[in-house]
Amino acid sequence: MREIYFDNAATTRVRPEVAELMMKVMTEDYGNPSARHVMGMKAENYIKTAREQIARTLRVDPGEIYFTSGGTESNNLALIGTALARSRRGKHIISTGIEHAAIYKPLDLLREQGFDITILPVDGQGHIDLSELSAAIRPDTILVSLMYVNNEIGSIEPIAETGRIIKERNPECYFHTDTIQAYGKLRIRPKTEHIDMLSVSAHKIHGPKGTGFIYIDKHVRLHPLILGGGQERDMRSGTENVPGIAGMGLAAEMYYKEHEKIEAGMLSVRDRLIDRLSAMEGVKLNTEKGEGFAPHVVSASFAGVRAEVLLHALEQKGIYVSSGSACSSNHPAISGTLRSIGVDQDLLDSTLRFSFGIYSTPEEADLCADALEELLPQLRRFVRR
Amino acid sequence: MREIYFDNAATTRVRPEVAELMMKVMTEDYGNPSARHVMGMKAENYIKTAREQIARTLRVDPGEIYFTSGGTESNNLALIGTALARSRRGKHIISTGIEHAAIYKPLDLLREQGFDITILPVDGQGHIDLSELSAAIRPDTILVSLMYVNNEIGSIEPIAETGRIIKERNPECYFHTDTIQAYGKLRIRPKTEHIDMLSVSAHKIHGPKGTGFIYIDKHVRLHPLILGGGQERDMRSGTENVPGIAGMGLAAEMYYKEHEKIEAGMLSVRDRLIDRLSAMEGVKLNTEKGEGFAPHVVSASFAGVRAEVLLHALEQKGIYVSSGSACSSNHPAISGTLRSIGVDQDLLDSTLRFSFGIYSTPEEADLCADALEELLPQLRRFVRR
Repeated sequence: MREIYFDNAATTRVRPEVAELMMKVMTEDYGNPSARHVMGMKAENYIKTAREQIARTLRVDPGEIYFTSGGTESNNLALIGTALARSRRGKHIISTGIEHAAIYKPLDLLREQGFDITILPVDGQGHIDLSELSAAIRPDTILVSLMYVNNEIGSIEPIAETGRIIKERNPECYFHTDTIQAYGKLRIRPKTEHIDMLSVSAHKIHGPKGTGFIYIDKHVRLHPLILGGGQERDMRSGTENVPGIAGMGLAAEMYYKEHEKIEAGMLSVRDRLIDRLSAMEGVKLNTEKGEGFAPHVVSASFAGVRAEVLLHALEQKGIYVSSGSACSSNHPAISGTLRSIGVDQDLLDSTLRFSFGIYSTPEEADLCADALEELLPQLRRFVRR
Repeated sequence: MREIYFDNAATTRVRPEVAELMMKVMTEDYGNPSARHVMGMKAENYIKTAREQIARTLRVDPGEIYFTSGGTESNNLALIGTALARSRRGKHIISTGIEHAAIYKPLDLLREQGFDITILPVDGQGHIDLSELSAAIRPDTILVSLMYVNNEIGSIEPIAETGRIIKERNPECYFHTDTIQAYGKLRIRPKTEHIDMLSVSAHKIHGPKGTGFIYIDKHVRLHPLILGGGQERDMRSGTENVPGIAGMGLAAEMYYKEHEKIEAGMLSVRDRLIDRLSAMEGVKLNTEKGEGFAPHVVSASFAGVRAEVLLHALEQKGIYVSSGSACSSNHPAISGTLRSIGVDQDLLDSTLRFSFGIYSTPEEADLCADALEELLPQLRRFVRR
């Protein structure tokens, strides 16, 4: 049976070139970067190369890239690190109703610790209102955290405009963006978009799990979360995950080297699936064609079918998709994003996410649509309305 | 040139079997454990297997093993997580003067936050005094953190006795031990040694960098450090490092399956090197034979030679060792451990650590000793006393 992996927003297959590089680092160049001998220097060089590879993709200074264990840690560091470093200046933070748990859970902790958190609403396409953002910024606002691309529906937020407004209204306020779904798929320019910090996870771009980074503009002052030997210029202690970092650097470089081609490829898959879904009865798309949405995600609600049932029926045909956001499916609460964009109550539990990677093809989109056309009438027969 | 890697306490070569398993997980079974389809279940199964493999090595319940990004994070979680969860009960913590930076740096942070930290001294062999420990425990002591094996000289602390005294004096006080240098090398039994938490790093036992675990006894209540999707039963959020976890599980199982053989092998390397060093003039051993020290570390001070110079001279001969502790050599302060055990002021900067792994042989110890015998007279000629 041919397998179709349409769950790339959850995680991706590691590129063979990346896995081979990691294999070499693990079994041959396995030194500790802190060691003073040549084995340590070789390890340090892998890290230096990765830092440069990544900095080039963002047009920032390599010294502004800090390696972490992944996107969740990067997000926690941005939020809690800012709070620890700047609480004397103010205790007001702004975010939105469609953030990932790796943002809203740390914000819950900060709220318990006495921080005042403003949550901005979004419209039906998942986009914030810039005048509402502007009105929310206060002299004691120390941080705005706004995701770049939503993980459930793929909407792209107005990041550059948000950055401009923040810096106009309160130049001392930091701007963090969760780019875990955006990095690789979009061209991101922190320096022109007024981004002070951004979080990235390697395993969303065909790199390894367990590694990520945070970009921190050189003017930003953060308190570290994990303390010890002082690695990553005291911002993140612990022996560096050298194979993971080397693999992430290569994955990032390969992704951006072919950026136009990869983007065009994903768009062709996305738009093919959207076209096919649009033609089906009782299917409501939560993702649109065009530039307001990222190229790799399609969210759709299937009236009269439970997402879980449809997911497993597709699985029987070798097609792997996600119900809601896989990243937090250990806690299968109804998605905050779908609720926030106003999806009907009876469709909340009938929504699937299809997400694409560098190996996805329009033909797979067709096969997936064919399967849905076959399954939906069968499944709907068994459902009481 | 034959290379001799005697820096295994800094990090180890990943076993080929471990690297191959990781390769398979990265490129074939690459699903997100949170995904509801079969790719997710396969990923989840790797984690389940690793949890069971590790639990067996400690004779604990698999549900008491929590995966982290490494030993440093595990240590931070134990200390800061206890402080966050139990500060209403008390704010007194006990540790020692020979802990790794991943312990004393978080303790510095807690001290700044108003915690009262008692630091126990050690004797000339690096061991704490149990009556001093007993006297230091108070009704408001919430945590004792004592390393199992010292990373610089290899001394083994009296863990079981410490655990017994803590539970007698204050049954509500948690006992954490940093077992980053002990795990694999020694048989550790948390349930009989009264250990509530212990920290482990995979890359010290021929597993991958960027992964580790913390054992948390089921009665312990900790506050998580990294918040988000709720992975690891809400104790450590972030997509699990499935290849790293699978690799660590296999590395742990392989290490303990041959425990006697590995231990005997390392002891033969250690004791050979100690014998040879004992016969050299102007060499003071900080490690002793016998059961008070771990099998994989030898620390020695070389009168009249700077450690850095000797390290690089050995490196020229393909022999890789460490000056002080490599884990924090980004901050090359003079070792707290060597000072604590009373090493002469003029030997502090003349101390090397030789550390062994599963691939080390007594023949390598002889070659290393031969090199030292050749180098020491040459280097000492150039030194002004």
